[in-house]
Amino acid sequence: MSYFNQAKIQYEGKQSNNPLAFKFYNPDQVILGKTMREHLRFAVAYWHSFSANGSDPFGAGTYIRGWDRFSGMDQAKARVEACFELLHILDVDYFCFHDRDIAPEGSTLQETNANLDVIVGLIEEQMKATGKKLLWNTANMFTNPRFVHGAATTNNANVYAYAAAQVKKALEHGKRLGSQNYVFWGGREGYESLLNTDMGLELDNLARFMHMAVDYAKEIGFDAQFLIEPKPKEPSKHQYDFDAATALSFLQKYDLMKHFKLNVEANHATLAGHTFEHELRVARINGALGSIDANQGDMLLGWDTDEFPTDLYSTTLAMYEILLNEGGIGRGGVNFDAKPRRTSFEQDDLIYSHIAGMDSFARGLQVAAKLIEDRVFENIVEERYASFKSGIGADIVSGKANLRTLEAYALENQSFELKSGRVELIKSVINQYIINA
Amino acid sequence: MSYFNQAKIQYEGKQSNNPLAFKFYNPDQVILGKTMREHLRFAVAYWHSFSANGSDPFGAGTYIRGWDRFSGMDQAKARVEACFELLHILDVDYFCFHDRDIAPEGSTLQETNANLDVIVGLIEEQMKATGKKLLWNTANMFTNPRFVHGAATTNNANVYAYAAAQVKKALEHGKRLGSQNYVFWGGREGYESLLNTDMGLELDNLARFMHMAVDYAKEIGFDAQFLIEPKPKEPSKHQYDFDAATALSFLQKYDLMKHFKLNVEANHATLAGHTFEHELRVARINGALGSIDANQGDMLLGWDTDEFPTDLYSTTLAMYEILLNEGGIGRGGVNFDAKPRRTSFEQDDLIYSHIAGMDSFARGLQVAAKLIEDRVFENIVEERYASFKSGIGADIVSGKANLRTLEAYALENQSFELKSGRVELIKSVINQYIINA
Amino acid sequence: MSYFNQAKIQYEGKQSNNPLAFKFYNPDQVILGKTMREHLRFAVAYWHSFSANGSDPFGAGTYIRGWDRFSGMDQAKARVEACFELLHILDVDYFCFHDRDIAPEGSTLQETNANLDVIVGLIEEQMKATGKKLLWNTANMFTNPRFVHGAATTNNANVYAYAAAQVKKALEHGKRLGSQNYVFWGGREGYESLLNTDMGLELDNLARFMHMAVDYAKEIGFDAQFLIEPKPKEPSKHQYDFDAATALSFLQKYDLMKHFKLNVEANHATLAGHTFEHELRVARINGALGSIDANQGDMLLGWDTDEFPTDLYSTTLAMYEILLNEGGIGRGGVNFDAKPRRTSFEQDDLIYSHIAGMDSFARGLQVAAKLIEDRVFENIVEERYASFKSGIGADIVSGKANLRTLEAYALENQSFELKSGRVELIKSVINQYIINA
Amino acid sequence: MSYFNQAKIQYEGKQSNNPLAFKFYNPDQVILGKTMREHLRFAVAYWHSFSANGSDPFGAGTYIRGWDRFSGMDQAKARVEACFELLHILDVDYFCFHDRDIAPEGSTLQETNANLDVIVGLIEEQMKATGKKLLWNTANMFTNPRFVHGAATTNNANVYAYAAAQVKKALEHGKRLGSQNYVFWGGREGYESLLNTDMGLELDNLARFMHMAVDYAKEIGFDAQFLIEPKPKEPSKHQYDFDAATALSFLQKYDLMKHFKLNVEANHATLAGHTFEHELRVARINGALGSIDANQGDMLLGWDTDEFPTDLYSTTLAMYEILLNEGGIGRGGVNFDAKPRRTSFEQDDLIYSHIAGMDSFARGLQVAAKLIEDRVFENIVEERYASFKSGIGADIVSGKANLRTLEAYALENQSFELKSGRVELIKSVINQYIINA
Repeated sequence: MSYFNQAKIQYEGKQSNNPLAFKFYNPDQVILGKTMREHLRFAVAYWHSFSANGSDPFGAGTYIRGWDRFSGMDQAKARVEACFELLHILDVDYFCFHDRDIAPEGSTLQETNANLDVIVGLIEEQMKATGKKLLWNTANMFTNPRFVHGAATTNNANVYAYAAAQVKKALEHGKRLGSQNYVFWGGREGYESLLNTDMGLELDNLARFMHMAVDYAKEIGFDAQFLIEPKPKEPSKHQYDFDAATALSFLQKYDLMKHFKLNVEANHATLAGHTFEHELRVARINGALGSIDANQGDMLLGWDTDEFPTDLYSTTLAMYEILLNEGGIGRGGVNFDAKPRRTSFEQDDLIYSHIAGMDSFARGLQVAAKLIEDRVFENIVEERYASFKSGIGADIVSGKANLRTLEAYALENQSFELKSGRVELIKSVINQYIINA
Repeated sequence: MSYFNQAKIQYEGKQSNNPLAFKFYNPDQVILGKTMREHLRFAVAYWHSFSANGSDPFGAGTYIRGWDRFSGMDQAKARVEACFELLHILDVDYFCFHDRDIAPEGSTLQETNANLDVIVGLIEEQMKATGKKLLWNTANMFTNPRFVHGAATTNNANVYAYAAAQVKKALEHGKRLGSQNYVFWGGREGYESLLNTDMGLELDNLARFMHMAVDYAKEIGFDAQFLIEPKPKEPSKHQYDFDAATALSFLQKYDLMKHFKLNVEANHATLAGHTFEHELRVARINGALGSIDANQGDMLLGWDTDEFPTDLYSTTLAMYEILLNEGGIGRGGVNFDAKPRRTSFEQDDLIYSHIAGMDSFARGLQVAAKLIEDRVFENIVEERYASFKSGIGADIVSGKANLRTLEAYALENQSFELKSGRVELIKSVINQYIINA
Repeated sequence: MSYFNQAKIQYEGKQSNNPLAFKFYNPDQVILGKTMREHLRFAVAYWHSFSANGSDPFGAGTYIRGWDRFSGMDQAKARVEACFELLHILDVDYFCFHDRDIAPEGSTLQETNANLDVIVGLIEEQMKATGKKLLWNTANMFTNPRFVHGAATTNNANVYAYAAAQVKKALEHGKRLGSQNYVFWGGREGYESLLNTDMGLELDNLARFMHMAVDYAKEIGFDAQFLIEPKPKEPSKHQYDFDAATALSFLQKYDLMKHFKLNVEANHATLAGHTFEHELRVARINGALGSIDANQGDMLLGWDTDEFPTDLYSTTLAMYEILLNEGGIGRGGVNFDAKPRRTSFEQDDLIYSHIAGMDSFARGLQVAAKLIEDRVFENIVEERYASFKSGIGADIVSGKANLRTLEAYALENQSFELKSGRVELIKSVINQYIINA
Repeated sequence: MSYFNQAKIQYEGKQSNNPLAFKFYNPDQVILGKTMREHLRFAVAYWHSFSANGSDPFGAGTYIRGWDRFSGMDQAKARVEACFELLHILDVDYFCFHDRDIAPEGSTLQETNANLDVIVGLIEEQMKATGKKLLWNTANMFTNPRFVHGAATTNNANVYAYAAAQVKKALEHGKRLGSQNYVFWGGREGYESLLNTDMGLELDNLARFMHMAVDYAKEIGFDAQFLIEPKPKEPSKHQYDFDAATALSFLQKYDLMKHFKLNVEANHATLAGHTFEHELRVARINGALGSIDANQGDMLLGWDTDEFPTDLYSTTLAMYEILLNEGGIGRGGVNFDAKPRRTSFEQDDLIYSHIAGMDSFARGLQVAAKLIEDRVFENIVEERYASFKSGIGADIVSGKANLRTLEAYALENQSFELKSGRVELIKSVINQYIINA
């Protein structure tokens, strides 16, 4: 059966005036020595595309989805079919899921796990049949009321144990499905109020949890890249993985840097007061750029809107960081942690939205690659920092200088030949590249 | 001569209906074994109180100050007199300054340093005569146009050397004046635009700079506590010491944790998206709570308003963190990095404003101490986290647990006995303490 | 039967150390000539207290509620019982509801209306039996998917008609229950994107809708005060009733000022970039302060947190505006549009939370009344604006001045005797009043 | 003499790889029946381009400007020369100024006016010689300390009179120079604190002031369009002209709608929580879109950054509103209320920055015009709102419907045929137009 039948037919027509056809994404186009497909490693997010219903804090679900005629395990099975159909239509290679996205919870953990096993089996079959791959999986430890006070940072040891059991199972499923990565996003790992919170104990416990996961993955031979996904707040008032720098601080303190990289999300970046490219840069220069959650926020709204990414400035600068990252996106990918607006509730909007996002990242890739080929930013930086290549600047960088030698130098050298940073001109150039790349 | 003559007379009257009299601050009151004076170690900020003029981005200075009838070095000398007079009137023991607050720049660094030496000499005399102390000093590396692209993170090696020379001098003056701390606040250590910025080099250079300062202080026997003061933005679009966690991440990466603590500012906390108490808690549990800049922001304004602190919720929770800190505020203090509003331009407003701030912190201290004496938060936390004291919880904390043992436990223990966090009730209790403490 | 049995018993104990006892609220205390009960006219919000479940965008419901053992109409009936029990326990006189809070939707509007009629009948009985009153009712035109594009600002005429039918019924029920007010809150009256929106038509249609409601209320003799409740965003990206000034602009343009006042909410004010007291002041000086939704937001979070109000600064300044309003709160009241945190999920938290809010408003009332009795702000304002009482100032106010006469005066009078606004001193005084009032 | 000599030569070279050459702006290109020049009516802002120095709250001026070798009236005269040279180089027809931008204040109002008269004379000569025109002028009533508590909303009648004298003079100069518009921006027309503010009196006085200005302009035959420029805050904590809707509310209340339109600024829009296009739409549908201040803010910074506009999404949607406005931009224009970054301190940055802004608006115009030609949004809107063209929808719009008829209809018509709003698809289309228009 087909959930996206009509859309698929239209799409396959690919007339140039067809809104369902890609305008920029061409998986086989070679850019800087790799195909677009290899650079971007697009993934569909199971939760937004197959398990969500379009509800918001003031309104019921609106999404019209073919699989909603089923319920329970039947619905879970239908979602698997729909997922692989959408991957096929979009020609996307990867998908991502939380355990609770793919199978319903039972009345016990045993039953829940049994449900999961069934669906993981189905997914495994589909993967074999289609060649589609799992970019990452994770455990949802935020929806169920038992996680009301946290999972790995709960005040309740039984809940902690339950979360550990859930992650154990998820690691096993990750291994079984050959997942490229395993992600921790801590929606409840934070606090509602500092007034009743033992932050020190909670963070220590969180680190213990991470170490246990690393150890167990090693034990079972699951060689996925571990990722932390920073987010500053929502649903918690404060989340411990506030932003990239905060996550790095945690990883350093608890000796986890060698095991973890970051899964950087655009909307989480802006909620934390940063641009997406800033967070990617911080991750990159710390050797921690692992994967991205591709979406965008509304800069005038204070919550996670998870919009499909269409801002070409953002996709260009994100792809620039990824292209400069050692190994590019590596084992990570461009996962659409994005949902059609509640007002875009038709099933075809899923396809339109993904095409909008994929095209925007494809264009961003084209523009970023051209900027790199032309050494636009590289020339600027090389010229701006030239004074650190020789003389006193080289002494500073090599560690030969100290306050005494620098003072002696400064007393003799009080002219600076400062130059404009030329930000406005650079922005003009970016506009020209976006249009002409 | 006297700059605050009339105010002083009024103040000394101390009638109960006198706005110049303290309502809560009593330096000799003993609380939890120390006097208020010892707990709070109040400091006046030279820049706001003696060197500022009330200007804002759209308006000229408004402050009416007695020392503004002078200029140049004469004005600098008059400011020293005014400073010690204000410390006397307020019975405040400490003050803080940037090098450029106390003496005007000359046409060369040599001349600037000579100016500084003269004023530092005057300050030294006054300190000896009065017993007042220097809480911290620092170098202003953000006002002069030469720092337009940064100081320790500039792209211009000559500027870097100049900044180093400035810090060398400041460390020497700090030693001479027995400064308790030395602070780095990096207003220009960040970027205007990521598009022309080599973030990796800039951060490496910043770390080199910090290490040179540490080395030189050691060399000259200046045993001050080094402090970094986090701020997310303003004047730069992004500042590298974004918040406490980011600063800790930097200190860890560059092996500086043993040399530095944090100077946490309330208004900087809220600009970074955190409460003041959150930043203090992060610093505290990392052994890095060094000192505080006492002020408050306007939560509806997106810039550093540096208002005098009057919010008793904030002062109470700040003092709670300080009281729980090992050694309390230690070598740090409560520095009023705060300015009277541009509309509060009369000289007496300096006194009213400090009294408002001192009283608010004094009340905060009283309330926090009572909360601790009554173990209000301690009892809540003890009860909330009790499950980590024995059984599986104790195994988690001690490191005995792993995913296998936790899963086995979880499969057998799927009831959780979750309890309310009681945030609303706790907030009611705080209100009662604020009124009745 | 009783839903709050244990809590009630505890409450009735009213030991001074009982968290369930009021510390400040005494309904019979006379302040400025009226009892606290008359000043405050507290109301319980049906939606948060009886129909909500503690879910958030990332988590399922957590609230434990006695009436959740029922479903459908049985649950609706149980909620009525629980509501009147809570009103009794708290000694609160008023409640508020949306149509969909009190009765479940049926499969047709006819069935839905029939359900509503049954429950309204029950409520009517309880009101007669207890003397409790309806502060306001309204129609929920935002939860059901049919309102995905708006209700009175929908693009779909059938939806508009449906909304009109819903309001007609709500007005009839309001009349039947003697509701004091009728409120319009337009959660979907705005837009998701300007790109597909005919703002002009939508606003014209909204005004037509309001006029129809006014006309029908008149026709059936329902003499409630109509209220608009401003909110800037959420759930919509932009809502047309952005803030008090925007609502007033709409009311003026469409000749609705004589029929409407505003229901001002604290959390909506801060989401719009204003303080609560600012919005109340704007409403007051335009003769439009009708009622308030008492709650508070988290200033570091960008969504409507609807916390119970505990900030005494805010309750004091809110009550100050209300006390100065002609007729005080009038036919309006202090409605707790507030919910216990998701982490405060026990049923008793409903009671603790309301007590926290009631006590905070009671204290605010005490403090505001004392400030007024002592003419604290009045003296400040009288002195500050004295120059407009005589001479050229009086000419300005009376309309006698023009640019020619003012220029002539200015050319002769170029000294200004500017005085400090003394904001810091005033804030000190407020702290003293909060503690000592 | 020439201030921009080298730049001019380079510019005239206009090689395609010359950063000084326009890429999109062609003043003579005809679009929708008018030239780009006529559509855009670009203006240079005197304050940012000739009177500013690049200072910020934490740093001294950085701009290197040829006219800074002069001071006093000599500098003022040099600035006039520089202004007309820049207008010539950029081929821009209009400029805008505040009185205090063009001439220094003297020690008395008489002297200040005399200075102004001299410079206005010079400007007049240059205008005659070059054909350049004044888009708008205004009075700076925010920089001088006398306006610390406001100008038309001051608490000091002498200050009010002084402000009136200033505006009288500005109106006279506006008439003399044939200014197309006269603008009120009220940087100090608001409050620092509500606690000492009589908002009712201040707003009444503000309205009186506006009426006096209207009356005097009429009296002297100055037929400029009056404009209010909304801004929510900064420098004041709250400004009375918060946003377009607030300004409209004020104009309506005080019977000023027929005399005033709005000067809408992009950065002010976002500071108020709106998009630029939202504010333009609000102005447009109320017949009040008068002119625009073209710039952009940094969405992650909470102050007025006044960046040159380079975001093509924003310029496209702004130009769309302007093209749909009756008469387009009319007597208004596109005024670059924008400044090069403090780090872009070279004189040539003034040229680069304006080219960046002009090109971005030129491209926005091209894209918006193509969207209109293709009826992209028009078709969407026509289809979305079709139900209001006939049947019950037409009855609603025509005013024939009432709650009774609508209820009767709704009871019979409970199917809605809701359609997706297709926001993601629309955003894809906009990207394609930006690149391909």
